[in-house]
Amino acid sequence: MTKLPTEPAENLAALIRCPSVTPDDAGALGTLERMIAPLGFVSERPVFAEEGTADIENLYSRRRGDGPHLMFAGHTDVVPPGDVSGWSHDPFSAAIADGAMFGRGAVDMKGGIACFVAALARLVERGEAPAGAVSLLITGDEEGPAINGTAKLLRWAAERGEAWDACLLGEPTNPDAMGDMIKIGRRGSLTGTITVSGTQGHVAYPHRADNPLRGALALGAALVAPPLDDGSAEFQPSNLEITTIDTGNRATNVIPATATLTFNIRFNDRWTEQTLKSEIEGRLARAAEDSALRPGKAGPVQFRLDWMAPVSPVFLTRNAALTEALAQSVTAVTGRTPALSTSGGTSDARYIKDYCPVVEFGLVGRTMHMIDEHVALDDLETLTAIYADFITRWFAGQGAE
Amino acid sequence: MTKLPTEPAENLAALIRCPSVTPDDAGALGTLERMIAPLGFVSERPVFAEEGTADIENLYSRRRGDGPHLMFAGHTDVVPPGDVSGWSHDPFSAAIADGAMFGRGAVDMKGGIACFVAALARLVERGEAPAGAVSLLITGDEEGPAINGTAKLLRWAAERGEAWDACLLGEPTNPDAMGDMIKIGRRGSLTGTITVSGTQGHVAYPHRADNPLRGALALGAALVAPPLDDGSAEFQPSNLEITTIDTGNRATNVIPATATLTFNIRFNDRWTEQTLKSEIEGRLARAAEDSALRPGKAGPVQFRLDWMAPVSPVFLTRNAALTEALAQSVTAVTGRTPALSTSGGTSDARYIKDYCPVVEFGLVGRTMHMIDEHVALDDLETLTAIYADFITRWFAGQGAE
Ligand SMILES: [Zn+2]
Ligand SMILES: [Zn+2]
Repeated sequence: MTKLPTEPAENLAALIRCPSVTPDDAGALGTLERMIAPLGFVSERPVFAEEGTADIENLYSRRRGDGPHLMFAGHTDVVPPGDVSGWSHDPFSAAIADGAMFGRGAVDMKGGIACFVAALARLVERGEAPAGAVSLLITGDEEGPAINGTAKLLRWAAERGEAWDACLLGEPTNPDAMGDMIKIGRRGSLTGTITVSGTQGHVAYPHRADNPLRGALALGAALVAPPLDDGSAEFQPSNLEITTIDTGNRATNVIPATATLTFNIRFNDRWTEQTLKSEIEGRLARAAEDSALRPGKAGPVQFRLDWMAPVSPVFLTRNAALTEALAQSVTAVTGRTPALSTSGGTSDARYIKDYCPVVEFGLVGRTMHMIDEHVALDDLETLTAIYADFITRWFAGQGAE
Repeated sequence: MTKLPTEPAENLAALIRCPSVTPDDAGALGTLERMIAPLGFVSERPVFAEEGTADIENLYSRRRGDGPHLMFAGHTDVVPPGDVSGWSHDPFSAAIADGAMFGRGAVDMKGGIACFVAALARLVERGEAPAGAVSLLITGDEEGPAINGTAKLLRWAAERGEAWDACLLGEPTNPDAMGDMIKIGRRGSLTGTITVSGTQGHVAYPHRADNPLRGALALGAALVAPPLDDGSAEFQPSNLEITTIDTGNRATNVIPATATLTFNIRFNDRWTEQTLKSEIEGRLARAAEDSALRPGKAGPVQFRLDWMAPVSPVFLTRNAALTEALAQSVTAVTGRTPALSTSGGTSDARYIKDYCPVVEFGLVGRTMHMIDEHVALDDLETLTAIYADFITRWFAGQGAE
């Protein structure tokens, strides 16, 4: 009998050695496909393309079964290693030192995939594999523009008749230690760009010009204060950050013609996309009328606001069977009670939640996207145990209903 | 006898046909040197150089005489023509149409030079040349960095024993019509750059980051409001304009690490360089402590302020004999009473005022630096008549003292 992929560190090392920096697959999905074949998975490898974006490889693998259907979701693409000379070990060598495995993607999130595969392999080896269906939905486009990734893969699978009862997304969710945190929702994300139009002129003749930067200061201040809200029962406060203001004027004696300002809002369930856009548009319209920073100028600040696509909606998973099974598994293995959190950035859960309830749990994210990303070998064992416990517990709960 | 350069339009056409866009001389100063030689001028052509700047040709010409010494100052370099296809006539052809001569430099300020030369030539031809000394101090570096121009040329001449009793600078000073305005002083100019330092981070985790753009908004608002002053007896209000704010962050999910802001102040005689710098530094220090736009951030905004060289001082010419002679000449020729103004940008008068009293009068500046820069032929005749009247009047006034 073929050896089953029961060792998470071995699984992870094989994946890390494929330098799959978005949009390159670098053999990562083929490695995964071969790894899980002995577990009975049948894989398909749809490639998605769109003008102006790189073609992206994806993987959808299903292990047939009767009854409920659990999806494990994730991504094999990784962010660039950055300054390779700053790493203690080659970022694609999966070196082991001080009880940890080093490499880009170790925690975000080849490690999560490696543990889920190992968990299922151990169940299969022990004859405890679930009777229901298990599928892996893995993209190569999560760290990039995410245009040819999870959203298209879900639609592609659904159009072929696939349906899921629950999803576990294996992103690193623990801030400091295994068992810290399960994510059960995410704030939404909305981005806008403001172009302020003034009248170019010489600084010695300001009355003949209209400095767009005076307008930009007024509009910018109205965006960031007062705060949007002070949070909700299940979410952090909404927050707006201006990410860039640019003018590009190198002449110190010239008042520029235009200035641009881009901002991003992470918003909670006190807002919808529409109410939030209305709030921002109202703030800007009022600030444009304020002449404190533009004494002597007739009329309001002239500006254009462009909302950028895509908008990520806010969501909260209210499926108690799913969140409780996962929390119980975490507690059973670690002895700790995980926080059920909605904090942090967006994730592909924003797409999955339209198909089935989704929760997120994975490794400790502290070193993700950093130089010397690494995962403790103990954490790999812990996560494998949690995932195995969860698979059994969740299917058992489904059968009991 | 050689024909004297008595016709300002002919003089101007010869100068316009040299495409002397800074730093290129393109034969302009040689043309001028040959033009004035028949009037008894002896010319020298010092070239000034400095590392990191282009070598610049300059001209200092003196017509010997007994008694007072009048300097005429100006520049033969011109700004680039811009989009040549937008011009009605080749910008270096000196085409005449509708009673005007078209060309880059027509009013700023080859026209002023052409008229001064014609004025002196007419006096010489009539046997009315002044008994005193007349010199021309003409640079090829006024529109550029002005590092190898008038300032060095003055020092160079002074070191050779040259001294002047008064200077007429021939920049275009009339906003709309000949006789509008004499300039008897200039506001100062001071430029600063602020670099705001924050802490880079992900927009979803603003508590771990410190957005420098929040600080930039606070500092920028403190720069522009309240106004610095409401003017003085002889000067317009001081004014500050932010000329650029730049960040260069293209990632809409990233809080940037730094932002820069550059501003320029045009200041009047209510300030010195030192009091003005103190005022700005005080405003910035107070604004840095304001946490309204940075809720929850410990400590003040971190920033660095760099004052940029050179600083142009404010000055006012209080030599009544000079300003009154010029004003009387303007009135004698045009029938109008010119405003004695200190408005507008800086000029090379800021250097000349350290050597002798200086006033500025020239053509109508409306088309300067624009596409289709042109001068009415009538205005050339008017300015030539004013300059001739002024030369006679000023020397007569000196003799009477
Ligand atoms: Zn990830
Ligand atoms: Zn000029």
